[in-house]
Order: sequence, then C-alpha cells, then structure tokens
Amino acid sequence: MKKIRLGILGGGGDSLIGVLHRVASFINDNYEITGAVFNPVWEENIGFAEKIGIPTNRIYKDFDTLIAEELKLPADERIQVCSILTPNFLHFPMAKKLLENGFHVICEKPMTNTYEEAKILADLVAKTGLHFALTHTYTGYPLVRQLREMVHSGAIGKVQKVDVQYYQGWINPIIHDKEKRSTTWRLDPTKAGISCCMGDIGTHAFNMVEYTTGLRVTSLLADLNYLYEDNQMDIDGNVLLRLQGGVKGVLRASQIATGEENGLKISVYGDRGGLTWEQENPNRLLVRSDDGALQVYTPGHSYNSALSLGGTKLPPGHPEGIFDAMANIYLGMARAIRQQNPHVAEFPTVIDGVRGLNFIESTVASQKGGNVWIDLDQQS
Amino acid sequence: MKKIRLGILGGGGDSLIGVLHRVASFINDNYEITGAVFNPVWEENIGFAEKIGIPTNRIYKDFDTLIAEELKLPADERIQVCSILTPNFLHFPMAKKLLENGFHVICEKPMTNTYEEAKILADLVAKTGLHFALTHTYTGYPLVRQLREMVHSGAIGKVQKVDVQYYQGWINPIIHDKEKRSTTWRLDPTKAGISCCMGDIGTHAFNMVEYTTGLRVTSLLADLNYLYEDNQMDIDGNVLLRLQGGVKGVLRASQIATGEENGLKISVYGDRGGLTWEQENPNRLLVRSDDGALQVYTPGHSYNSALSLGGTKLPPGHPEGIFDAMANIYLGMARAIRQQNPHVAEFPTVIDGVRGLNFIESTVASQKGGNVWIDLDQQS
Amino acid sequence: MKKIRLGILGGGGDSLIGVLHRVASFINDNYEITGAVFNPVWEENIGFAEKIGIPTNRIYKDFDTLIAEELKLPADERIQVCSILTPNFLHFPMAKKLLENGFHVICEKPMTNTYEEAKILADLVAKTGLHFALTHTYTGYPLVRQLREMVHSGAIGKVQKVDVQYYQGWINPIIHDKEKRSTTWRLDPTKAGISCCMGDIGTHAFNMVEYTTGLRVTSLLADLNYLYEDNQMDIDGNVLLRLQGGVKGVLRASQIATGEENGLKISVYGDRGGLTWEQENPNRLLVRSDDGALQVYTPGHSYNSALSLGGTKLPPGHPEGIFDAMANIYLGMARAIRQQNPHVAEFPTVIDGVRGLNFIESTVASQKGGNVWIDLDQQS
Amino acid sequence: MKKIRLGILGGGGDSLIGVLHRVASFINDNYEITGAVFNPVWEENIGFAEKIGIPTNRIYKDFDTLIAEELKLPADERIQVCSILTPNFLHFPMAKKLLENGFHVICEKPMTNTYEEAKILADLVAKTGLHFALTHTYTGYPLVRQLREMVHSGAIGKVQKVDVQYYQGWINPIIHDKEKRSTTWRLDPTKAGISCCMGDIGTHAFNMVEYTTGLRVTSLLADLNYLYEDNQMDIDGNVLLRLQGGVKGVLRASQIATGEENGLKISVYGDRGGLTWEQENPNRLLVRSDDGALQVYTPGHSYNSALSLGGTKLPPGHPEGIFDAMANIYLGMARAIRQQNPHVAEFPTVIDGVRGLNFIESTVASQKGGNVWIDLDQQS
Repeated sequence: MKKIRLGILGGGGDSLIGVLHRVASFINDNYEITGAVFNPVWEENIGFAEKIGIPTNRIYKDFDTLIAEELKLPADERIQVCSILTPNFLHFPMAKKLLENGFHVICEKPMTNTYEEAKILADLVAKTGLHFALTHTYTGYPLVRQLREMVHSGAIGKVQKVDVQYYQGWINPIIHDKEKRSTTWRLDPTKAGISCCMGDIGTHAFNMVEYTTGLRVTSLLADLNYLYEDNQMDIDGNVLLRLQGGVKGVLRASQIATGEENGLKISVYGDRGGLTWEQENPNRLLVRSDDGALQVYTPGHSYNSALSLGGTKLPPGHPEGIFDAMANIYLGMARAIRQQNPHVAEFPTVIDGVRGLNFIESTVASQKGGNVWIDLDQQS
Repeated sequence: MKKIRLGILGGGGDSLIGVLHRVASFINDNYEITGAVFNPVWEENIGFAEKIGIPTNRIYKDFDTLIAEELKLPADERIQVCSILTPNFLHFPMAKKLLENGFHVICEKPMTNTYEEAKILADLVAKTGLHFALTHTYTGYPLVRQLREMVHSGAIGKVQKVDVQYYQGWINPIIHDKEKRSTTWRLDPTKAGISCCMGDIGTHAFNMVEYTTGLRVTSLLADLNYLYEDNQMDIDGNVLLRLQGGVKGVLRASQIATGEENGLKISVYGDRGGLTWEQENPNRLLVRSDDGALQVYTPGHSYNSALSLGGTKLPPGHPEGIFDAMANIYLGMARAIRQQNPHVAEFPTVIDGVRGLNFIESTVASQKGGNVWIDLDQQS
Repeated sequence: MKKIRLGILGGGGDSLIGVLHRVASFINDNYEITGAVFNPVWEENIGFAEKIGIPTNRIYKDFDTLIAEELKLPADERIQVCSILTPNFLHFPMAKKLLENGFHVICEKPMTNTYEEAKILADLVAKTGLHFALTHTYTGYPLVRQLREMVHSGAIGKVQKVDVQYYQGWINPIIHDKEKRSTTWRLDPTKAGISCCMGDIGTHAFNMVEYTTGLRVTSLLADLNYLYEDNQMDIDGNVLLRLQGGVKGVLRASQIATGEENGLKISVYGDRGGLTWEQENPNRLLVRSDDGALQVYTPGHSYNSALSLGGTKLPPGHPEGIFDAMANIYLGMARAIRQQNPHVAEFPTVIDGVRGLNFIESTVASQKGGNVWIDLDQQS
Repeated sequence: MKKIRLGILGGGGDSLIGVLHRVASFINDNYEITGAVFNPVWEENIGFAEKIGIPTNRIYKDFDTLIAEELKLPADERIQVCSILTPNFLHFPMAKKLLENGFHVICEKPMTNTYEEAKILADLVAKTGLHFALTHTYTGYPLVRQLREMVHSGAIGKVQKVDVQYYQGWINPIIHDKEKRSTTWRLDPTKAGISCCMGDIGTHAFNMVEYTTGLRVTSLLADLNYLYEDNQMDIDGNVLLRLQGGVKGVLRASQIATGEENGLKISVYGDRGGLTWEQENPNRLLVRSDDGALQVYTPGHSYNSALSLGGTKLPPGHPEGIFDAMANIYLGMARAIRQQNPHVAEFPTVIDGVRGLNFIESTVASQKGGNVWIDLDQQS
C-alpha cells in the first residue's frame, strides 16, 4: 500500500515529542516523512534532516514556504497530513492555515491557546471534511480502549462515579525558588496560556473522563492552587465534576505532588462493576464487581474488545517497552558498524550465542546422565 | 548522518518479530531498509515490500540471490548488515555465508541449532572482524542495564547468589492433547533442536545470568520435565548453576506454568545488597540492602548509570508503551485519510480539543469566581 | 504489673467489633475484662460471657446497674475503663455518664451523633482529667505513625498538598433496590445521624488528615452524592479542604465505589518529599523525593521512628496477620481437644514434624553425596 | 463454654514467639493460661507471670515440677495442653514426657532435632490418641487454606509443577564476619542441629508443598551453600523435588538473600490453572488460567472455601494487622491510665471526636448551601 505523505512541523533537535511522533508514524507502516520544517533556524533544520536521514529536497525554510511549495506539487505527490509539534502558540495559526489549504492535521496538545480559537478550528474541520487528530496519547493504550469499550458495552452497568488523577512533581523544585518560578515558560501566562496545571495535564485527565465514559462534563467547580502570591499560574488543583445524567466525579491534578512521576489514573464505577487503569502500569486493567474476585486484564487476550486488540501488536506478557529494548540493541550495533566504540554490554554478540548453545546442550546432557553436573566450556 | 543500509531476511506477513526489528531499526534514526527477502514465495515477498512501503528494486527472490546481487554493487551502496529473522534452522547457514561475504549480522535467537555450529560462527566473527549482534532483547531494557552496571560497580558487593526464572504457560493447552503435541513444531526435535523450553527461553534466562553478573556459568545440573512419554522435548525444567568463583545459582524455566504470560525475573544477591528485575514490569528495579529501606529505581533519573540512561528516550514515569499508544493514534488517522472508516474512538479529534479548552477556561473561571459551579458548553 | 480492669459495653454475639476490642485489649498484657453488659437481653448477655469464658459475677443486666454496682466496690477493685461498643446513639449518654462517675472511656466511632454532644464530652474530659480514647483504629498502624512522625520531623519539608481517599463498595448492592435502601439502618437518619458516608468513613479520612499532618482543617466545601431522590443520606462525596496555613487538600469517600473493599489511602506532599500509605497494604509506606529513588519503608527497621517501632511487635517481613494464622492453628487444636472433629487440614500434626525432619536430613545427605537424589521415607 | 486449660513452656521475657502464642490462644476465646514455666530462672519466671498478669500459683520452677504437680490435680482442673516454646533441643524430651503423661501438645518448629526423635513422637501420638499440633503457622492463613482447597477440589486440574521459595537476608551481616559466624547459635550444629537454612525455613517451604498439594515428596536432590569453609551449616540452598505421581518441583531457601525480609512464596500449577501466594502480602491469592484474566482472591468472600472462611474473622479489605493497630490504641490508653505519659499521638482522644463531628456536620452544611465553603470551628 502506498504510504501516506507526512509533513512535520517542529520536533527537531533533542525534542522528545519529535522522536515520539516519528516512531509512531513508522510503527504500522502507513506513513513516510515527505517534508518538514523541523526548526526555524535553517542550519539546524537541514542539519537535523540529514542527521535523521530524511531527504532534504522538501525541507522548507519556514511554514509558509512549505504550504506554498507543496501546493505547487500535483495532489498525488503533495504532503497529505502535517504533524504540528511546535510551541503552543503556533498550534492555532498553523492548524488553521493547513485546514484552509486542504491538509489533514495531527496536532499536539493543547490544540489552541483559547476556547475561541478551538471553536474556529472545529468549524473549519466541519466545513472542509478534513481529518484532525489531537494527540491525547493516553487514549491509544490498548487497555484504555478496553476500559472504554467495557463502559460502553454495559459491562459495569450505569456509571455512578468517576475519579481521575494526574499527579506529577516536576514543578516542586522550581516553584519554591523565586528566580526559577519567574523564568519558567510554563509559569508565564503570556507563553503558556491562562493555566499551567489544568492546561497541561488537567486537560488530559478531563479527556480521559469523557473518552472512557462517553459522558460529557456538564459543569465543574474548581479549587486551584498557586502556592505563592507572585505566581499567577495554577500548579495544582481539585475539580468537582458533574457529568451528563447527573453523574458526579472528581478530577485531581498536580505538578507539585513531590516525587510523583507521571501518575495518571482513572477509576470509573458503575452499578455493576468498577474499572481502574494507571498510566505507570499501563498493561493492567483492574476489573471489580460486588461479589466476584478482582480481575486483572492484560492486553492481547481473547477476552479483550476488538478496539483494544486492534491496538496491540505483541503477545501477552510483553510490555511495549520491548520495542525500545530491541532498538537499544540496534543502536549498539549501529555504533559498532560506525566504529563509534559501543559500550561493552551494549549488545549481545556471537559469544553469547556460543554460550547459549553450550548451555542448552549441557542441560540435556545433565538430564540424560541422571541429573548430574556438567561442566560448561570456559574457552569461548 | 548517513543511514546504515540494512537487509532483512524473513519477517514478512504477520510476523511479530518482523515488526519488532523494523521498528527497532527506525527508533534511533540509524538504519534504512535497503534490501530484503521477506518470504520465499515471490508474490508474498514483493507484496509485503509494497505493503510496508519498501522500494522493491532490491527485494530478492532468495537469500543466495541477495548475496550475489549485493556483492555486485559498490561498497558504499551495498547492504552493510543483515537481520536474520527466518526459521531457526536457517540461522546458521545464512549467518555463515553473510560473514564469509563481509556483511555484519543481526541474528534472532537461537543463534544456531548446535553448539558446534555456534563455535564456527564465533571463529568467523573473530577472523573477519565483522560485528554480530544476537538479539537477547531483554538486555536492551534500561533497568537490566542498570542492574548490570550496579553489579559491576560493586554496588551490591561480591555476588553470592543468583536466581533467575522464566515462566510461561502457552504449552499447557497443547501438551495434554496428544494430537496437538505431536504436531507442534516447537515440540519436534527435527525442527526445533534438542530442547524446547531450555532452547527457547532457558537460554534467555541463562544469558541474563551471565550478562548481569559478568560471571560465567562453569557447570550445571539439570532436571528437565517432559510430562508425557511420547513427548521428547523438555517443556519445563530446573537447573542448578555454579558460576565462576563458586557462586551458586538456580535457573527455572517453564512453558507449562499455566496462566503465566512472560514471567522472566532475575534476582542477584551480593554481600552488600540485592537487585531484582521483572520483565512484566520492566520500569522498576528493586534495590535491597541489609538495613535500609527497599528502593525502587525507575528509568531516566540522574541516579541511573550512563549505560542505562543511554537506552532511555522518555522522561520518568512514561512507560515505553507510549510509542505504541501514539502509533495507535497515527493508525486511526491513517485509516481516516484512506477512508477506511476508523472506529469512533480510534483517535481524538478537534472536538476533543474544543472540549479541552472549554474545560481549562472553566476551571480558571470557577477559581476566580470563588470556587463556584461553571457550566460547560454542551453545543460542541 | 497489675492488669487494668476493663468493662465492656456491647460487642456480644457475633460482633466483629467485640472480637477486635477483646483481642486488642489482650495483646500487650495490660487489661483484664472485669465486667460487662454484652447484650440488653439477659440470657444472651450471660450466655456470651460464659461462651467466651469471662467470670459472670460482674456481668450486669444493664448499663445503669453496672455503674451503680461498680461504684459500691472499693476503688482498687472497681472497673477503671469502659469500652463502648454499643449502637451509635448510645455512645453519647454512656460516655457522659461514665465520665461523670469517674471512669476512663474507650469509645467506638462516631463518638456522638452531633457536634453539640461531642463538645459536651470534650468539656467533661477536660474538667474531670479522665482519659478518653476514640478508636480511630487506623492511627494505630506502625506506618501511619511513621508517616506522621516523618511529617512532623520535617522529613518532607513544608506540607503543600494532601489527598485522602476512603473507597468502599458495600452500599452498591443496596442502594439500587428501593426496598433495601429504605430499610438499611445506615441509610436511616433517625438511626445513623445526618450522614452515612461522611459520618461512617469520611470522618476516618478526615482524622487521618489531621493526625498525619498535625494541621487543622480550617474550612471545607463538599459535594455529596445521594443517587436517588428518596435517599436522604450521602453515600459518596468529594470534599475540598483548606488546612492551617492555607494548605489545600481533597478528601474523597464512597460507599458506592463498586467492588472496592476498604480502600483508605493518604498522600501528603511537602516541598521536600511525598508520603503515601494504603490501608489494604498497611506494611508499606512509600517515600518519594524530587530526584531520589522511590523508597518503600516497612515496619520494624531501625530507620523507623520510636513511635512506629513502639507499635511493632514482629520482625520485618511478618505481616500482623500472623497472629490470626497462629490463632487458626490454636482453633483447630481446640476443636480436636473438644472432640469437635476439626477439618483434616486445620492444623499441622506430628506427622508434619516427622516429614520435616526427614526432609532436612535428606537435603544434607544429598549435598554430602555430591548432589544426588535421596528418597524420602513414604511410611510416615 | 469452659476454656481449655493451657500450659506454657518458655516464651517469657521479650520472646516474640511467646507473644504470638498467647495472643493466638486468646483470639478465639478457647483457652486460658493455667500454668507455666516461662523461664528457668525463678525470679524471671515469676516476675514475667506477674508482669503479664497470670495467676502465680501454678507457675512452676521447672518442667518436671509442672508435670508432677499437675498430675496431682483432679483431671478437670489439670492443664490439658502445653505449648512448647523452649530452645530447640528441649522440644523432644518435653514433648515426649508430656505425651507419656497424658497431655496434648502444641509444639514450635522444628519438632525435634533428628528424624529418629520425630518418629518416636509420632509413635507416641498414635499410641496415646493425644493431639499434637506443630506450629507451621503459615498454614493458618486463610488464603493458604484457600489455595489448598482449590488444589484438592480440582480447580486447577492435575498438578504438574510446584515452585516454592523462602528467602531471607538476615544471616548476610553475620556470615561475612568470622567472629560473628562462629558465635551465632543458629550456625552451631551442636545447638541448631545439622542444618541452618533447611532446618529453619526450608522445612516451612517443604511443609507448604505437601500441605497445599496434598502430595508427598518422594525424593529430592539438594545443592546447599555454605560460603565459607569454616562454616559447617548451610545458609542457602536449592532443592529439586519429585512428588507422588512424578510431579516435579523446586524448593529454594536462603538466609543470605540480602535485604529480603521473609519472602515465603509458593506457586502450584495444574493442567487447568495456576495459584500463587506470598507471605509478605498474605491477603492475596493469584489465580491463573490458560485464557482467562488473572484473578486476585482476597479473604472473606463468598467465593472462598469453608476452610478459608472459617479462618477469617474480618470483613474483606481489612488486613489482620488491624488487631495490632487497635491493640496499639489500647496500649496508649493503658499508659495514660497508668500515668506513664503516652506519646502525644499514641491514641485519638475526645478532641478527635469533636473534630470529627464538626467535619461531618460541615460537609452536610456545605452540600445544603449549594457546595459552598464552610469554616470549621478552630476552638476545640
């Protein structure tokens, strides 16, 4: 199948979000990176393309040039979809112009800086019929999808309570230092919008509530936390939620929950059962009921829903981290081939293979000899 | 940087190992897939290349042709390294011929079917100076590397005990059915070598022992388990180990540990501490000592070793499954662009973005109003 | 040391709370049960005393008689302290009369039905100088005490956020059945006071907040949940908290969190660290910091505080459930002595001892023989 | 019901095992401690009896006197059963003499020092018809009993694999110090018998295998670990097991698994399922099957067996540690009554009760006021 032509805006240099999007685009063999503006500085832009091995003929000097030049190409060569990985304030103008010129959009979160801008984009999407994906990444986990499908299929009955938490601690070392808190862009409303904690992670938690329950939040009451008078941005907060049908919920988000890493967790309780998922242990879905034993669902089993199974590539018991583990071995090999002197333990070698076969044959020999000691070869 | 030219042998169709190697080769931007023999059947071979979007001009009809044709190309265009993902019995002849013709090799496990063959490859690698990576994938996990570095740096003192386990249950539904157990290739010694459990997973456990401790196993005593007289292949076993310096260990592996998924676990105890890692929860390393509190190491922190940090791409608290989660969103978008009617919940859309901004602005309004209820817009 | 003379009010029959108080009074060898009114029905009262082997001469027909008769005894024979385990509405009148007559009081929760009554008791305690213990049992856990001591000693710096949860699901099967919800005493305000969920378990969570932080709650905002219009009692709720010094917190309690058993959990975050404890896994205290590894404290170690160690009777790694496990063996033996035909597996017998010694001697023989197989005696 | 008259041998002073047996004997209201020899030194013996409030008239100066004097009493006053908590070498002579004189016996582990002695006791029990309980305490846990009942009822089908582990680390700080290892009684064969690790904890693991599976071990092969040449006692070891019917198993025990506390764990796998229990988290039984979700059994549910439920006193979600937690509150109260100046946080007082009621009434007021802030009273 022909690959979809993907353009990338931002995400150059050491950007983690850039790595994440490129790998994600590769994993299911659907996309090729056709063009990009990785960086506003030309040398870094083109240098990065070379470093990661992207053809440089469609690396553009800026966003407007990308639009202009791509539009000159015939439709079947033109970029079809662009991923917006730039600083937040650029999300809205870039998405708007892309939609106006016929490009599908994949956009990092937050989609825009204001609700007004958001509605403008929604209108454009509706009018143009183009596709727009917002990367609320957590909804991509197989067991988040399983959770959603179980709620929707009635497996836990009528929803009666929702509790979502998103706890991080990374702002703690910043907030108590007046110098640091006045210079961090996340805490500057001119750069990060009107909210820090709610805007950055509360919105993920909110999306999880609506995604998993299929219920809209109808109203809320928030108690936000600023810690210092000279800090204008919330860094923690508790929000009471009312969902459709009068269902009550609570959303708790924090960036000063000292020592927490990325503690996103959601529980949905219905009149027939309860479901809990935690991002830091994403391969487990806890399934509770009134009188049965706690069940722990894992991905890839026949008891999972089609939507969940469609997002699972590995057999049960293999955390997706195995992609990364294998990638690290390829990385070591690349260093070796490039004579970059890989670390001694960076990849297993032929000697490990020799040892392995010696092991296997020795176990069988021990068994056949009546469970006796067998010496392994110490030459290799 | 110019990408390394990678050839792929096997791994076509629905092969999971094929996906794993392709993604791993992509993740750090080092490789491009230049040529391949994905499948011995030509239509499937070329069809698969087209499906995953690999240029078809260097898809060869068989392995020998690949070698012959690539050797005709100038060295700076030729495939540099081949990944062998074919059935086990082909590993040895392919690896041997690749090495004899100047190609680096990445080889799936088991490296060969016999110890004799393994030693031949080792000699070839030594003689040619080529690189050979055996994909004992688990050694690529950041915290396995951390475990190894802590043992090597003396953090737990002198090693005095090693315990490794690899428990799966997948053969249970096969072994008790005479028809099934006589037709499963894993249980056929002519196809799978002299051992099933030790050959398939015991060898991973063995490699973990030597990798993490840096100590060679010097001798062993095995008690293997066959369950039925007409079954010639071990499906479970316990192995007593003696390591260099007289250190004692035990290795337990099973494919009839009913209901276990992929339970690889290792504990190394020294005279100053103990370390435990489990594959099913790979982002935690348990660190014990005589009188201190149990410590739980996670990846990406400053307390981790350089080798461990070099294999970590994400910030603390983000399991690598996030690559997969993001990939699932890209997959939904691809289906939408291709008008394949993605599932309603397969990716977040602009409407989710509108909802998110409405949420953020409402939380701030609630706070400013003195923690009062704010209605969310129900039009969008 | 002479035992303290303890009187018991209520707690007869199958009362779990009765067992809990009797065992607790026994554990540290401080009390003897001297008198009681276990039950308002005389036959059950005296019958229960006989069943549990309490001398019957000071089993009284009712509470007023107990007071009157005990006051006739010389002070050094008289009951010193009474445990009130009766229905809630009796707590206040009994506690009041006990204090007015010079008895110390141990009182189950809730202390009274109203705040007004509570203040009357507090005044009496202040005036009389008598001791009054309210059994907020969770504060007795060694690691809750450790948590408190760490907060107080400054180990996590200045408290900046508190999150407490108490989730149960037991009312779920009741609340959706109109008949059941109208006949359950817990949901009847005339019997259970003005609140169900907050009164029964919210108050435990509240106590944990003030106990562990040492900070008073200064104000709150509650959102309670009733589910049905004909139900007058809250069965779930979220409460926003403001503590002394402006510290913000959130308290969540539920009896309709379907499938949850007794999910009490508290997290306290300060500017130098964070602490988390869960009642369902009470032997672990999670200790977090900005940049260090997560630490897991367990009871009985030298790193614990004096208050924590003072409440620990067992060595590390032994959950207190071992009291119960041992008690079950004593129970089996009692049944055997009383010729009540204990279950075959209810206690280990001399045959288990014979097997054990055969095992031990065989292991040593196997070792001495060079790790060879030794047959165990199959006669015993 | 009349209490069973219990005698105690040993267990005085700070003995933990003494506390454990006394509490266990109390918990189900079956026993009264009628007589004892707590200590061979008379002052300590009688002093301890006074300290814990046991009547001193039947505290005897030594074991032989206890036997002689008790035999003079009429049968319905005489001690019926004795608990032997003395040093190991006394177990055999005491148990023998007790049985020969008509007393039931509860005996700490190991039952005797040798297999020969063990068989003598077994013969005596058979001949006299007296009851003999050996305190393999772990078999008393509700979920160990549940595990056993599930195996026996066929819930996991035919047993095909057993794996038991008992890992501790407490000998690590001793074994590497020549002075310490030569003076620790556990490492002195004249005091502790022929085995340290296998005798002390291996035997518990062995008992768990036979108890849970109902299968006898028929033969074994052991590899024991001594670490130093001058150490004659095993401190670690791996034992291969063969059970009735040819079932294979492995037993691993260690006292040099540095940092491990009391890591007893057993897994039993059958052809229809697998079961795992861990002592350090005793309220969870993991239940696995080929294709279903992992189930986590907890005590006290209707899905548990009668034997398991018979050993459960508390509702689901309450770890038995609650006995201890409540006992700590009683302890604080005792100190207060005795004017021993309890720690400020040692028990909740009437003030906590006042605070609690203020909390409850405030939550309802906040709700009724439309979820508004309510100030709590700061006077109390």
